[in-house]
Amino acid sequence: MTTLDMIEDAARRLNGHIRRTPLLSSPFLDAVAGRRILIKPECLQHTGSFKARGGWSALSAMDDATRKRGVIAYSSGNHAQGVARAATEHGAPSVIVMPSDAPQLKIDNTRALGAEVVLYDRATEDRELIGAELSRQRNLTLIKPFDEPLVIAGQGTVGLEIAAQAAELGITQAEVLVNCGGGGLTAGVALALAGHAPGLLVRTCEPVGFDDVARSLISGKIESNTAASGSICDAILTQSPGEITFPILQRLCGSGLVVPEADALRAMAQAFLRLKIVCEPGGAISLAAALYHGAQIDADTVIVVATGGNVEPDIFARALDIL
Amino acid sequence: MTTLDMIEDAARRLNGHIRRTPLLSSPFLDAVAGRRILIKPECLQHTGSFKARGGWSALSAMDDATRKRGVIAYSSGNHAQGVARAATEHGAPSVIVMPSDAPQLKIDNTRALGAEVVLYDRATEDRELIGAELSRQRNLTLIKPFDEPLVIAGQGTVGLEIAAQAAELGITQAEVLVNCGGGGLTAGVALALAGHAPGLLVRTCEPVGFDDVARSLISGKIESNTAASGSICDAILTQSPGEITFPILQRLCGSGLVVPEADALRAMAQAFLRLKIVCEPGGAISLAAALYHGAQIDADTVIVVATGGNVEPDIFARALDIL
Repeated sequence: MTTLDMIEDAARRLNGHIRRTPLLSSPFLDAVAGRRILIKPECLQHTGSFKARGGWSALSAMDDATRKRGVIAYSSGNHAQGVARAATEHGAPSVIVMPSDAPQLKIDNTRALGAEVVLYDRATEDRELIGAELSRQRNLTLIKPFDEPLVIAGQGTVGLEIAAQAAELGITQAEVLVNCGGGGLTAGVALALAGHAPGLLVRTCEPVGFDDVARSLISGKIESNTAASGSICDAILTQSPGEITFPILQRLCGSGLVVPEADALRAMAQAFLRLKIVCEPGGAISLAAALYHGAQIDADTVIVVATGGNVEPDIFARALDIL
Repeated sequence: MTTLDMIEDAARRLNGHIRRTPLLSSPFLDAVAGRRILIKPECLQHTGSFKARGGWSALSAMDDATRKRGVIAYSSGNHAQGVARAATEHGAPSVIVMPSDAPQLKIDNTRALGAEVVLYDRATEDRELIGAELSRQRNLTLIKPFDEPLVIAGQGTVGLEIAAQAAELGITQAEVLVNCGGGGLTAGVALALAGHAPGLLVRTCEPVGFDDVARSLISGKIESNTAASGSICDAILTQSPGEITFPILQRLCGSGLVVPEADALRAMAQAFLRLKIVCEPGGAISLAAALYHGAQIDADTVIVVATGGNVEPDIFARALDIL
């Protein structure tokens, strides 16, 4: 169970190894949204997403002997890079189990960051079984992508930064929009804000067709997506929220926002034009919600977490074509 | 004459109104360059370039009565936006004289930021005459784009931040690559570093064919470009370094780097891929120099100022096509 203390401990371990991303803004985006928007660009984080935080949190908390034997993770790409970087910088070997249809860029980067990549077929193989088998054979510690208290604690440092940055700006009331896959980041941010900025309400953001979290928040139990792929928002296509993350979301978050993935491309174009940052589709659903679905939002101020920027050039070019 | 004290005064006036941009890095870029590269992304600054600093510095230093009458500036785009934003936020009217062939995005943004835009024909009209005439008619204060001590002081705050950020990282020796048009930013950064981080040597970066500063540094007198347009690096096509800026560059900077503009597009692609930031061509010449022209660099560590990100989507798409 992740606590506020664990998040604050993680922040101390991350210090000097993880970037404190700024809060960006643009009067042009405020005009589109009809309210004040602040953007936390975690695409500027090491490895191009907030996942570098959770990876570092997990690796830095391990005892030396365990860490030396190595770690294993399964991930479509961003958690992969976060764990690979943290492992390599800690001098630990890492094995990452990735779907063979993950973006080539993410596979290449994970290898270049020092990991051994094991590919599997999403349609016919089970990544958890592959991970468990390799973990047993080689005595590797599994670092789960979201349902792991130390990972949640690492992602929660985004929330500590938001609390401090909002306070500097005198903001005490806002909605905080977070792109949500398994809920690790959302749960961590929600815990951090509940402790340090209780007037900031976290809301999950998902693409249409992959709204397992929004539906779970409505029904009060863990719901699943029917599809496992088929969206450009590859970073957040997790089947369901986690056993650990969901109760935190349920306790602390507002209702979930659900946005057409085409709006993620429009939001990527605005982020290019107005903020000069690169977002991946799954990293821009939150901005899309703020810009184009304001009717679902109550607060005068919205803080958008732009969670990642690992996008293939051809997808980004599609976003530019909108302009 | 700009002094270190003036830069520090400007930093106090800018505090809370200008972003302290982070220092970014990527192991992938270090590998391409064969040395450590740190990137200061001023493209993430308000208005998409460092020019927001000089504009704020000038407006914030004016007395109320003068400011109320309004200001005028001539600019191909980035200084325009910087002055327009500063004027509007200070409640002052602004008139910006822009070439009719400036990127439409920059013209539109300048208007949207609250300025009255007056277009002129680069081939047949003289912007300084137009500016002087309007200034006289309407009693407006001219804010020159670079050869103005308060503007240099504002841009110099980039140097104060670099000095502090390098010190945090324990860096005492480095070359600092700055895209150079008229030399306002370069002069300000050089003054700030001479005062606070004397082991950091500033080097100017220009595109081939527009290397007036590099040639001036060699000959010891102000040289001019023969062409006034015809490069995608529109932000830094100034004819010559300024009367005020050049003696500062001559005293404090190393030799100038000159880079083919095609390499700016390659650098923009790498900035997209590895840093998730958007650079305009004239803002990426410095990164191009670090990545592809390392033979002209001595230091083990290079700090690159990515000066701006106001690029049209079709030019950015050309950079993506390289990947």
